[in-house]
Amino acid sequence: MQVEALIFDVFGTCVDWRTGVAREVAAATAAKGLKVDGVAFADAWRDLYQPAMQEIRSGRRSYTELDVLHRENLDTTLDSFGIAAHFGDDERTALNRAWEKLPPWPDVVPGLIRLKANRIIAPCSNGSIALMTRLARYGALPWDCILGAGIAHAYKPDPRAYIAACEALRLQPAQVMMVAAHNSDLSAARDCGLKTAFVPRPLEHGTSQVTDLRATSHWDIVAADFPALSAHLDLRPHD
Amino acid sequence: MQVEALIFDVFGTCVDWRTGVAREVAAATAAKGLKVDGVAFADAWRDLYQPAMQEIRSGRRSYTELDVLHRENLDTTLDSFGIAAHFGDDERTALNRAWEKLPPWPDVVPGLIRLKANRIIAPCSNGSIALMTRLARYGALPWDCILGAGIAHAYKPDPRAYIAACEALRLQPAQVMMVAAHNSDLSAARDCGLKTAFVPRPLEHGTSQVTDLRATSHWDIVAADFPALSAHLDLRPHD
Repeated sequence: MQVEALIFDVFGTCVDWRTGVAREVAAATAAKGLKVDGVAFADAWRDLYQPAMQEIRSGRRSYTELDVLHRENLDTTLDSFGIAAHFGDDERTALNRAWEKLPPWPDVVPGLIRLKANRIIAPCSNGSIALMTRLARYGALPWDCILGAGIAHAYKPDPRAYIAACEALRLQPAQVMMVAAHNSDLSAARDCGLKTAFVPRPLEHGTSQVTDLRATSHWDIVAADFPALSAHLDLRPHD
Repeated sequence: MQVEALIFDVFGTCVDWRTGVAREVAAATAAKGLKVDGVAFADAWRDLYQPAMQEIRSGRRSYTELDVLHRENLDTTLDSFGIAAHFGDDERTALNRAWEKLPPWPDVVPGLIRLKANRIIAPCSNGSIALMTRLARYGALPWDCILGAGIAHAYKPDPRAYIAACEALRLQPAQVMMVAAHNSDLSAARDCGLKTAFVPRPLEHGTSQVTDLRATSHWDIVAADFPALSAHLDLRPHD
C-alpha cells in the first residue's frame, strides 16, 4: 500500500521546544530583573509534561487540552524556581504562549514543502488544534490539516491518537507514515499498523542528550533530516 | 473584541461546486458513451445534501461523514438518471471524489492569502477533514487548520458546529467571524455570538439563481469578494 499521508510528531521532531521556551522564559524573567536559567526552566517545565498527560491516559482525569496542562505546569515551575510572586495571571497566560513560538529545526520547512508535493502532511502531536495552528503560523509549517490529540481527545501513545488521525483522512493505517524523533512514538504507531520513519534530533535535549540518538528498531525509514526523508520516499516505488 | 480568526463556509462560498461536479460527471459519463447533462446531475446530487444531513441534525441517525452521505446520494442520483447499471462500486467511489476537485472562485486564493497575513483562516464546512484537506490541496486553499463538522461531529446550522470551531481555536465567539454566501449560515453563527461577513456568490446555482443574491440582515460586513473583505477588515480598527 502506498503512503498517502505523513503525520509528524512536533515537539522535538519538527521544532526545537527547548531553545524556544528558554528564550521566552529568559526574556520574561530578565524584564523583571530576575536571574533565571531559561534552559533549566524549560527543562523543568517540560519534565512535568508526561506526568500531566499520564493522568489523562490512565483515565484518572478527563481529556484536558495541553494548553491547560502547560499552564498548570508553569504555575508549578514558577513555584519551584521561587519566582511565583513575580508573575500575575495575565503574565502567566502570556508566558504560556512560549509553546506557540518554537523555532523549527532548519531542515523542517524546506523538507515539509518537498514532502507536501506528493503526500498529505499533518502534525500528529499531543498539542491542541489551537496550539498547533499558532505554532504553524509562527514557524511557517505548511500543514494540510491539523491532526493529533486535538481531534482524538487522547494523548499519544494511546492508540486512539494514531487511529483517529488515519480515520480523519479516511485512510488505512498502512497508507499513513508516522514521522518522529522518538522511538517510543514510532513503536506505538507501528502497533496500530502505521508505517514509520525515524529522524533523529540529537540536540533536542542539548549537547549531552543520551536518548533517541539512534533507531532502536527496524523502522521503515531512518533519515538524517526531512529532505533526506523525502529522498527516501521518492526512491521507494511502493511508498 | 478583535477578530482573531475567520472561518469560512466552503461549498458555494469558496468553491464552485456546481461547475466542478458537473465537469467530473460529464467526463465520467462521456467515457461510457452516455449522454448526461452534468449540470442537471450536479444539481440533483446536491438536492439530496440537506435532507441527508437533516437525518443527523434531527438525531434520527448518528453522525456520519459527508463523504458517506455524498456516496449514498450518488447512488440515488445514478438511479434517478437511469444509469446506475453503468457504474460499479469502484467507479462510484472514484466519481464521489468529484467533491474533492472543485474550482475556487477566482478571488478566493488571493483573498485568503491576504486575510491569512493577520488572522487565522479555516474552513467551517459540513465537509469532513478528509474532504476539506483534499479540496484544499486541489485548489491551493491556504488554510491554517481544518474546522467544521469534522471536529464538531455536528452539521451546520447546528450551533455545536460553530461553537466547536471557536473552542478548537481557544477563542471567544466574538473573536471569530463567519464568512458565508448564505444568509442562513450567518444567522446561525450570529446566534452563537460570532461576527459575520456576507460575500454573495450570485452564480453558485447558475445564471438563474434567486436565493442569497443579497444580504437579508445587518451582517457585520458585506463584501463583494474576499479581497474586498480583507480591505473592510483593515479599515475597522477594532476588528
